[in-house]
Amino acid sequence: MLDPRDLRMPRIAGPSSLVIFGVTGDLAKKKLLPAVYDLANRGLLPASFGLIGFGRRDWSDQQFVAFAEENVRAHCRTPFNGSTWRHLSQGMRFVKGSFDDAEAFRNLSATVSELDRVRGTRGNHAFYMSVPPKAFPQVARQLAESGLSHSKEGAWRRVIIEKPFGHDLASAKELDRVVSEVFEPDSVFRIDHYLGKETVQNILALRFANMMFEPVWNSNYVSHVQITMAEDMGIGGRAGYYDGIGAARDVIQNHLLQLMALTAMEEPVSFSASDLTAEKTKILSAVRLPKDLAAHTARGQYTAGWQGSQHVVGYLDEDGIDPSSTTETYAAIRLDVDTRRWAGVPFYLRTGKRLGKRVSEIAIVFKRAPHLPFEATATRELGANAVVIRVQPDEGVTLRFGAKTPGSAMEVRDVNMDFSYGRSFTEASPEAYERLILDVLLGDPPLFPTTEEVNLSWKILDPIEEFWAGQGQPQPYRAGTWGPREADLMLARDGYHWRMP
Amino acid sequence: MLDPRDLRMPRIAGPSSLVIFGVTGDLAKKKLLPAVYDLANRGLLPASFGLIGFGRRDWSDQQFVAFAEENVRAHCRTPFNGSTWRHLSQGMRFVKGSFDDAEAFRNLSATVSELDRVRGTRGNHAFYMSVPPKAFPQVARQLAESGLSHSKEGAWRRVIIEKPFGHDLASAKELDRVVSEVFEPDSVFRIDHYLGKETVQNILALRFANMMFEPVWNSNYVSHVQITMAEDMGIGGRAGYYDGIGAARDVIQNHLLQLMALTAMEEPVSFSASDLTAEKTKILSAVRLPKDLAAHTARGQYTAGWQGSQHVVGYLDEDGIDPSSTTETYAAIRLDVDTRRWAGVPFYLRTGKRLGKRVSEIAIVFKRAPHLPFEATATRELGANAVVIRVQPDEGVTLRFGAKTPGSAMEVRDVNMDFSYGRSFTEASPEAYERLILDVLLGDPPLFPTTEEVNLSWKILDPIEEFWAGQGQPQPYRAGTWGPREADLMLARDGYHWRMP
Repeated sequence: MLDPRDLRMPRIAGPSSLVIFGVTGDLAKKKLLPAVYDLANRGLLPASFGLIGFGRRDWSDQQFVAFAEENVRAHCRTPFNGSTWRHLSQGMRFVKGSFDDAEAFRNLSATVSELDRVRGTRGNHAFYMSVPPKAFPQVARQLAESGLSHSKEGAWRRVIIEKPFGHDLASAKELDRVVSEVFEPDSVFRIDHYLGKETVQNILALRFANMMFEPVWNSNYVSHVQITMAEDMGIGGRAGYYDGIGAARDVIQNHLLQLMALTAMEEPVSFSASDLTAEKTKILSAVRLPKDLAAHTARGQYTAGWQGSQHVVGYLDEDGIDPSSTTETYAAIRLDVDTRRWAGVPFYLRTGKRLGKRVSEIAIVFKRAPHLPFEATATRELGANAVVIRVQPDEGVTLRFGAKTPGSAMEVRDVNMDFSYGRSFTEASPEAYERLILDVLLGDPPLFPTTEEVNLSWKILDPIEEFWAGQGQPQPYRAGTWGPREADLMLARDGYHWRMP
Repeated sequence: MLDPRDLRMPRIAGPSSLVIFGVTGDLAKKKLLPAVYDLANRGLLPASFGLIGFGRRDWSDQQFVAFAEENVRAHCRTPFNGSTWRHLSQGMRFVKGSFDDAEAFRNLSATVSELDRVRGTRGNHAFYMSVPPKAFPQVARQLAESGLSHSKEGAWRRVIIEKPFGHDLASAKELDRVVSEVFEPDSVFRIDHYLGKETVQNILALRFANMMFEPVWNSNYVSHVQITMAEDMGIGGRAGYYDGIGAARDVIQNHLLQLMALTAMEEPVSFSASDLTAEKTKILSAVRLPKDLAAHTARGQYTAGWQGSQHVVGYLDEDGIDPSSTTETYAAIRLDVDTRRWAGVPFYLRTGKRLGKRVSEIAIVFKRAPHLPFEATATRELGANAVVIRVQPDEGVTLRFGAKTPGSAMEVRDVNMDFSYGRSFTEASPEAYERLILDVLLGDPPLFPTTEEVNLSWKILDPIEEFWAGQGQPQPYRAGTWGPREADLMLARDGYHWRMP
């Protein structure tokens, strides 16, 4: 994964360009353009760097630069620096066109060559597909036909795909077939921005750089694991994409299954991409679905309610949503991992929109001590120990344990021990997209899921989606609450309850 | 230890009185009188409670009440409440006399009987020996001769002894002989105020109410244990007592060996006094001294230096100290515990005056992970994991572990996770003396060391003191530093270094 020589030095990308398809979209405006700027400002991009926007607007390069500057200024993480911007913008180009326009791709090809000549990008170009999945095949074909996907000797061409990677196993395989006709497998980077987060990578540091967690990180001591990604927002402007997809495909298939794999996997031989992938793949292939899906999964759809002081509409009343939609906005599933380490330890994955709070976390919940030499009443308020990896917001780690309450009696109550990234490091955490774009330019893919991981994830989700498809309407839950009653029952059946994050 | 019915209710002492010998001394003024008041204010003393001061001053009861009020107001932990004080002071008496005055003890006996009659103390009386140890035999004899040590049917008489419990095994046995001629063994309470601290009791909660610490609390995972009690003060007004006694007898023999026993012991069947004592005793009797005492112990004596912005004199220049004194003001020793759990895990105990900071803590330092799947340079700043039980100040628990530093490289650095009593509980921690005086009145001795524990502790310390006695002057260390070089070498020989608390 990393060259030891560079470990303590920032690694700087080599001469290259980034081509963004869909550059006028929200992702490009809020994340990609600012991330490119922040990388440049941190000195992690080479002088010979080019940035090409591709879109239908009738823009000159200058107009594109002005558009980019506006969005960078609004969303950059590091301070806006005029000289960084001047140098970066000199390597910026705009190519006008639609995806069915072969002429536009020939123009793109010419622009890329021009950058190689005047900017020194040396034939290294990455194509960021910030476009709806249905456009992938067309763009891929155009890249092939215009010769853009073919790298010259000693140079590279790479493609970056945003989720969704299909909507089931069959479509994922089809997508993979299309892309792999044009690009080599190791030139395809599937971005899961969750995996670019510091806390996700810290799962590896926490587990494997320390002595005290691994000995209890198994079924002898762990009772169950809860992986949560809760959003307080509704579907916002994503109706067109979201309806028919739902919470499980949108979040569980990619983010939560990846978090689960990192939490459950054995220690990799190294943190190289292939060693990491080997361990994650083992976990995904060891996942067993519950026999009784009705008892061990839950689906919900939010209804009108209050989010803080704001009244919000229900899912079926959102703009652009079919009033009879059966799409779930909340999903929870139980999975088992059939390995020696995890036999008998359920993993509960849940995600939802319009929940009580925006929070993502992995909670390793331990069994209770086998014997408590306390009087029964003294531990009445004592829960189970837990290690909670907080992914967002306030990234960090919490440890819940029992401590004596002050006073004469030996009474024990749960308390928290906290570690916060923000308070412990003066360095600010880079945005996930900074890390991931840099990794693409460096050709360093440890944080990108492979085709096999994507396929295994769909293999886990497909039977659940199929079961849900026959169940009609998801259970309603009021906006601002923690999901449908079904989800609580699902855990109660196993003797547990969801953590209140 | 506790009656389950009372666990969540405060336990209230029964009708009784407390007689304090040495009531005009510092301990009584700053700790005992305020603790009695705070107990009364918390509602933990019965209406039928009496408090008798015994001393040489020519005081009336009223003058004693005025003296007590002044000190209570100055040092009480809970707010001063006039009606609590009025009721408490109505049960206060002063008996004038010296310890060789049989008449005074007859007066004391009459006063005690008077309290039984007018205050309803029902013959239950505790005698607090806040006096120099050489006065113990005389006071004990007087209590016997005046009949004060004999309880009537259904009532009790108890005696509270402050450390030092002798200065070696022989003197401890002699003291015990004298006291046990007068009082039954289970009526003798040896106060170690350290054991009354919440954090010390929290060692038991932390270890035994939780699942995640015990599995790693042994020689498979623990590298070594460091128990520290550091003071920034010099000897203050204690020259007469301290010189010739020294740091090891003053602190290691009682406080640190007790902390070590609680840290190392097996889980007791219950927290009753006898079950707890059984486990602590097992550890103390399993302690093995290093063969080479020169290599594995260290002694120091502070010289002049700076404590913060204040210049302070060296030990030999303190008022009342013999300029040729060889008394150590710093002591560090290595002990091994020959049990299955701890074989090969050294316990390092250190204490000293005029050190860098006032702090007491127990640090369980773990081995490094057996294999680190990181590049070598990535863990350069990584130390060992540690669980640190902070006894004072800022009572709590700290966990030191490795976390990923923010940024693109997988680099791991030590961070702390903290739990603080003060920030986690709204209830303030009672003073150690409140807890311990209440325990005496309740007859509930789990936090008091037994004769056997005291004797075992001297058995550990005697050979070290004997060795040191032949070594001449302790090594000098500058006031405000962390002790003599010898102490650093002592750990370096084993491949470790002292934590900087």
